[in-house]
Amino acid sequence: VSTEFDLIARLAAALPCSRKDVVLGPGDDAALLKPPRTGQLVQTVDTCIEGVHFPPGLDPEDIGWRCLAVNLSDLAAMGAEPAWALLSLTLPRADDDWVDGFARGFGELARRWDVDLVGGDTTRGPLSVTVTLTGFVPKDAALTRAGAKPGHGVWVTGTLGGGAGGLAAWRRGDRAAAAAFLRPDPRIEEGRALRGIASAAIDVSDGLAADLAHVLERSGAGAVVQLEAVPLAATARREGADAGLRMALQGGDDYQLCFTVPRGREKALLKAAAEWEMKPSRIGEITKAPGLRLELLGREIDLGPGGWDHFRGDG
Amino acid sequence: VSTEFDLIARLAAALPCSRKDVVLGPGDDAALLKPPRTGQLVQTVDTCIEGVHFPPGLDPEDIGWRCLAVNLSDLAAMGAEPAWALLSLTLPRADDDWVDGFARGFGELARRWDVDLVGGDTTRGPLSVTVTLTGFVPKDAALTRAGAKPGHGVWVTGTLGGGAGGLAAWRRGDRAAAAAFLRPDPRIEEGRALRGIASAAIDVSDGLAADLAHVLERSGAGAVVQLEAVPLAATARREGADAGLRMALQGGDDYQLCFTVPRGREKALLKAAAEWEMKPSRIGEITKAPGLRLELLGREIDLGPGGWDHFRGDG
Repeated sequence: VSTEFDLIARLAAALPCSRKDVVLGPGDDAALLKPPRTGQLVQTVDTCIEGVHFPPGLDPEDIGWRCLAVNLSDLAAMGAEPAWALLSLTLPRADDDWVDGFARGFGELARRWDVDLVGGDTTRGPLSVTVTLTGFVPKDAALTRAGAKPGHGVWVTGTLGGGAGGLAAWRRGDRAAAAAFLRPDPRIEEGRALRGIASAAIDVSDGLAADLAHVLERSGAGAVVQLEAVPLAATARREGADAGLRMALQGGDDYQLCFTVPRGREKALLKAAAEWEMKPSRIGEITKAPGLRLELLGREIDLGPGGWDHFRGDG
Repeated sequence: VSTEFDLIARLAAALPCSRKDVVLGPGDDAALLKPPRTGQLVQTVDTCIEGVHFPPGLDPEDIGWRCLAVNLSDLAAMGAEPAWALLSLTLPRADDDWVDGFARGFGELARRWDVDLVGGDTTRGPLSVTVTLTGFVPKDAALTRAGAKPGHGVWVTGTLGGGAGGLAAWRRGDRAAAAAFLRPDPRIEEGRALRGIASAAIDVSDGLAADLAHVLERSGAGAVVQLEAVPLAATARREGADAGLRMALQGGDDYQLCFTVPRGREKALLKAAAEWEMKPSRIGEITKAPGLRLELLGREIDLGPGGWDHFRGDG
């Protein structure tokens, strides 16, 4: 443990542990935790760097929320329930106000999903936030990227393009319209509900095209997606049809789930989704032929720079 | 999951998983792990930044080893056995040779302690390495910083000052003498052996004075340390008596264990230590009076700048 300054103590005081499975939280050489008596652990880590993953000038409350949300979204995509977070915070200087704001945003989302901050460190350097998150999933129930088979439907939760659309709104100073970017709402409940229903799942963090491609690669299959079926966020639609679709396909930061469902489980999906705030959309189908085929009103679209221009000309 | 470039896949390929409790390693939204059937989990995270925690120009193999060692040392101080690592790597540019070197150093130490790299991400930015490590400890057997009581002996493993002495040697181009800095040897075995013997423990990462002070704070006690009993590393001794002691007390990067032992457990300690490569040293005693008192040949020494000068004058 090597803390350049003792901001981690300030963070820990602002974010007290409340879970019964936390035996020893921040302040020792390591955290001490009771594992669940059954089931498996799910672990992920993500680093968010100022100027790379979020723009300079973002409110520390939003940074705190977003950096936890990115990790929660990974656990949602596994169908896991979150439990313990570790935080490694690199700051250009010891700034109590900044840390207090960060703790408010982080804490608001952490409390919503019963996540305890169990440890971490702070160092001096360019602004960067690394969150490690551990959660639980019943044995053999986790959703993975592998498992999509030809004929399975391709689905998404909520709307896409809201991350990129929200960032564009934030740059224009429209904070209200920027909510999807500033305060993404990880799909923990939906991920849990998809256990036993989805054959594969991923969270949409880098844009639908790239993330669905990861599923196809791990599943050894292809897919066709009908672009007119992709639900666009209002902030993305506002940018125009072409730019809006581009935000959904390539924008990233949506933190929705993209998942595949065998025909025989569609009824179960729709029943489960009756409880969801936003209905899931079927946007395509897994194919035996490899690769991701995008169609707009039955016509194939190429996402490459030339292809996209072609698409623009037709759009 | 947001990877700027796909170096994490290269790292994962170089560091294949071999533990039976790893259900799903790198390559999905999160890792999937089997917790131990009994006992507790121990988790820690540490970030090492170039120019802060290690000097620019350090060999990537040494960076890989060191960054894992820092975390292993935290688990050693808890008496835990390490299991799963997550790695978040920030690099100025995608550099395959650098990553291969890093993987060699990281992998060499990981294999020694049966640690699997189960996930991570890579991003573009100033060189920085964050390792999260999870390990196991039997229920209620973990060593913590609390528990030191008046009359307990204060002990250290190995020698101190080797981290700072090794860094000084490295700066002079003497790689052989720099080993303690470049390739610290975390005291995992010793930490495990201290379960049921030590009343408190910490790893010496920031210098004996600061780290022992953490134990005193968490234990609500004080201590007196006889400086002539503090075992100095050869590289620290070479810097002269004063500078060597200063390296031990304030230099950091030693990754030895400092621990306290009740009188009634000293026999058990010496029996356990008969197996150790280096014998532990009793350097002082816990006191009821708060604060850390340093004595040299019975005379009190003040570590403050003035006090240290006084000490220098007498040394």
